[in-house]
Amino acid sequence: MGLTVDTINQRVRNAEYAVRGELAVKSEEFRARLAKGDKTLPFDQVISANIGNPQQLDQKPLTFFRQVLSILENPLLLEKEQVLVNGLGYQPDVIARAKKLLDSVGSVGAYSASNGVPAIKESISNFIQERDGFSADPAHIYLSTGASSGVNTLLNVICASKQTGIMIPIPQYPLYTASLALLDATPVPYCLDESKNWGTDLDTIRKSYDKGKADGLDVRCIVIINPGNPTGSSLPEEDIRAVIDFANEKDLLVMADEVYQTNVFVGKFHSFKSVLRQMQRDAPGKYDKVQLASLHSVSKGMVGECGHRGGYFELVGFDPEVEANVYKFVSIMLCAPVIGQCMVDLMVNPPRPGEPSFALYDKEYKSIFNGLQERATALHKAFSQMEGVSCAEPQGSMYLFPTITLSQKAVDAAKADGRKPDEFYAMELLNATGICVIPGSGFGQVEGTLHFRTTFLAPGTEWVGSIVKFHKDFMDKYR
Amino acid sequence: MGLTVDTINQRVRNAEYAVRGELAVKSEEFRARLAKGDKTLPFDQVISANIGNPQQLDQKPLTFFRQVLSILENPLLLEKEQVLVNGLGYQPDVIARAKKLLDSVGSVGAYSASNGVPAIKESISNFIQERDGFSADPAHIYLSTGASSGVNTLLNVICASKQTGIMIPIPQYPLYTASLALLDATPVPYCLDESKNWGTDLDTIRKSYDKGKADGLDVRCIVIINPGNPTGSSLPEEDIRAVIDFANEKDLLVMADEVYQTNVFVGKFHSFKSVLRQMQRDAPGKYDKVQLASLHSVSKGMVGECGHRGGYFELVGFDPEVEANVYKFVSIMLCAPVIGQCMVDLMVNPPRPGEPSFALYDKEYKSIFNGLQERATALHKAFSQMEGVSCAEPQGSMYLFPTITLSQKAVDAAKADGRKPDEFYAMELLNATGICVIPGSGFGQVEGTLHFRTTFLAPGTEWVGSIVKFHKDFMDKYR
Repeated sequence: MGLTVDTINQRVRNAEYAVRGELAVKSEEFRARLAKGDKTLPFDQVISANIGNPQQLDQKPLTFFRQVLSILENPLLLEKEQVLVNGLGYQPDVIARAKKLLDSVGSVGAYSASNGVPAIKESISNFIQERDGFSADPAHIYLSTGASSGVNTLLNVICASKQTGIMIPIPQYPLYTASLALLDATPVPYCLDESKNWGTDLDTIRKSYDKGKADGLDVRCIVIINPGNPTGSSLPEEDIRAVIDFANEKDLLVMADEVYQTNVFVGKFHSFKSVLRQMQRDAPGKYDKVQLASLHSVSKGMVGECGHRGGYFELVGFDPEVEANVYKFVSIMLCAPVIGQCMVDLMVNPPRPGEPSFALYDKEYKSIFNGLQERATALHKAFSQMEGVSCAEPQGSMYLFPTITLSQKAVDAAKADGRKPDEFYAMELLNATGICVIPGSGFGQVEGTLHFRTTFLAPGTEWVGSIVKFHKDFMDKYR
Repeated sequence: MGLTVDTINQRVRNAEYAVRGELAVKSEEFRARLAKGDKTLPFDQVISANIGNPQQLDQKPLTFFRQVLSILENPLLLEKEQVLVNGLGYQPDVIARAKKLLDSVGSVGAYSASNGVPAIKESISNFIQERDGFSADPAHIYLSTGASSGVNTLLNVICASKQTGIMIPIPQYPLYTASLALLDATPVPYCLDESKNWGTDLDTIRKSYDKGKADGLDVRCIVIINPGNPTGSSLPEEDIRAVIDFANEKDLLVMADEVYQTNVFVGKFHSFKSVLRQMQRDAPGKYDKVQLASLHSVSKGMVGECGHRGGYFELVGFDPEVEANVYKFVSIMLCAPVIGQCMVDLMVNPPRPGEPSFALYDKEYKSIFNGLQERATALHKAFSQMEGVSCAEPQGSMYLFPTITLSQKAVDAAKADGRKPDEFYAMELLNATGICVIPGSGFGQVEGTLHFRTTFLAPGTEWVGSIVKFHKDFMDKYR
């Protein structure tokens, strides 16, 4: 009878990934029905607020980036430079950058080195130095197929057995629990502090670590997502210091998922790498053995180029033999998409003031940033006015993660429907409005609390009004 | 002391991937030295014959494909259609195709559906129908990040434990053994028949299966690479029928790695899907439960777009619940690179006779095909004249896999150097000529035989002469 769901890899069967689960599938069915002219639905568009996918919604690509990529895809265009300049309005720095990248990459249709194009690793190293004020060695930078494949690589190398404990925040991005399920390693969850804008709380982390050890686990890594997903938090420097200090004390590898590093509305982004280097400078010798992996991506921020699947990670303090195994692992999949690698190069080395493309780039970049902030604020304001809803101030990333308090009647209705209360709420929201959000249970939440995650990427305010109206009706119905 | 090579995932440590191993790393060091002006090496260029990476060497991208991609990367170009046509010489079908793809994809910077852009799955389904004469359902087609990630997905779902046995050809492409090592499943090797141009031999397959069963394994899948890697074989239809018949008898899932399907010099490519459908038509009911996964890619053939990491796989006869798990697995990594998906669309739906871009496309395509065949023939001829070397006639793919017979003195010298004899030979070849090939032991070979794999992608004949001269010197030295 061949392969069945009972004989396949049960680790795959047990893995959960809510971002693209039942709600997302149903929302795509609604979208297809609307596209076919179905008039029976109570809404006329589907809003995919379930996933941080900016260019699926309103966000336009940055012109400079895409002009360069168009030449990389068709280098024969360089034989007609005058047409590019006079006919298409390509600025000289577009052409110069394309030539430079083609010089170092060769054809974007060729495999690169397994860990990425050397010149692009140099660009990343310059970017990190400029961002942090501390140098970065290109030898320890690895290009990846988006940050997700970087996380996959690192967890594959780190997780040795079911006894391996990996500390993950709750709520978390479900890539982490899904990957740990596939690798049959054990998550050691630590709760973020909703009352402190979803910051880290060291006592909580310590207790969670102790529990993991008491359970017989070899706790060897702590994952931090900053700015936060799904929480929208942005960690203050002291929280980062405290985590590094704890990791140093307990010999934990720090995995810093920093893909939202430019999506910061409040305060300033502090990279784990820069804080670690400061701590190493301030207390010579004390933090020498800290191992850090930090990840970044072209998918988020004002770049928003999810579909190009570009990203990188930097390793600090890794044993050379361990790094050799990281290299071997990435080499099995040959290399990250080369045009995506070039997108990374553009992200880390955008037009500078004084360069011909700077004015347009700067205008586009700021317009996206301001638009995101305005939408976050508007959505937050709407949530603040909704009965039984409270929501931390938007600080960063692309998400809000409000708490919802539902009546016992609603909880009973969910149970009768065979769903968790937050799943039930999200499904009812989708059915009534076409807006797809993800229930908090897909990310993990403190027992007894309910949340949902929504992006604030969709344009306009009409859909925010739809949420407000739905919520009122829902609360009235189950009062 | 943090993570060490003794505490990491030992499955990663134990995995081997010769295509990008020590020889490849050393060849890159040589290349870097030459680039810096180092004159101390006995050669002036490095020839990467270790990897099927056409565009790193001589192969140019197909113009139509890259023109379309240049518009997909910068859709603003469509606002200047006249410039594209009159200034850049883009044909109307280039522009029409770009518009069609943008209509269905949206932005190439947005995530697509997890299993790929629906319209591109439709294109693939039309291609399969045209190729095979049997229909293909888009619902069972999955876009992947090159074929490698497709293999990774399928093996992750199929391999349940160390007791899972996966039949793999020997010699094989080391992606298979590496992936099985990572998943802690067990390869069940079956030898290809070098005397029959590396075809499959059913007696050998049966014995290998029986041995796997006798060893207590749950043998559940047979992998076939056709056209062959590293062997350069192209299977006759009767071999494929025999494999399917055997798989049906033993309830084995068939995984057909068909990425070289257009690299066929002798006879005709027969897809497993078409042969299965014929068998199902000819003997109604008998083969209904055969499960087949077949893989294809933009990396090989006359397309040669490795760097774009585009590919797909089609599932036939899979249980819907198993497919749901395949879908979930691919969704964790979100989606394949969208521009790579578009490249798949172009590969399966190239310009047709009568369309404006056809003449150029056809000329470029045939020129690449003929060039590959000529080089394969020239290399084969050179091998035929070398002492102690024999090589099957080139039939397909991008490789030759000659047998080499070395003297006891050479074997002893290898041993003294701490290497297997074929590794020693390949290392000496690299050191003397700058030509990087992969020793047969990286793919597996019958005990007591020695081989190496070389691509025939490098331009010119000088490097072939270098191999001939090196081989003569090597044989003389160790006579």
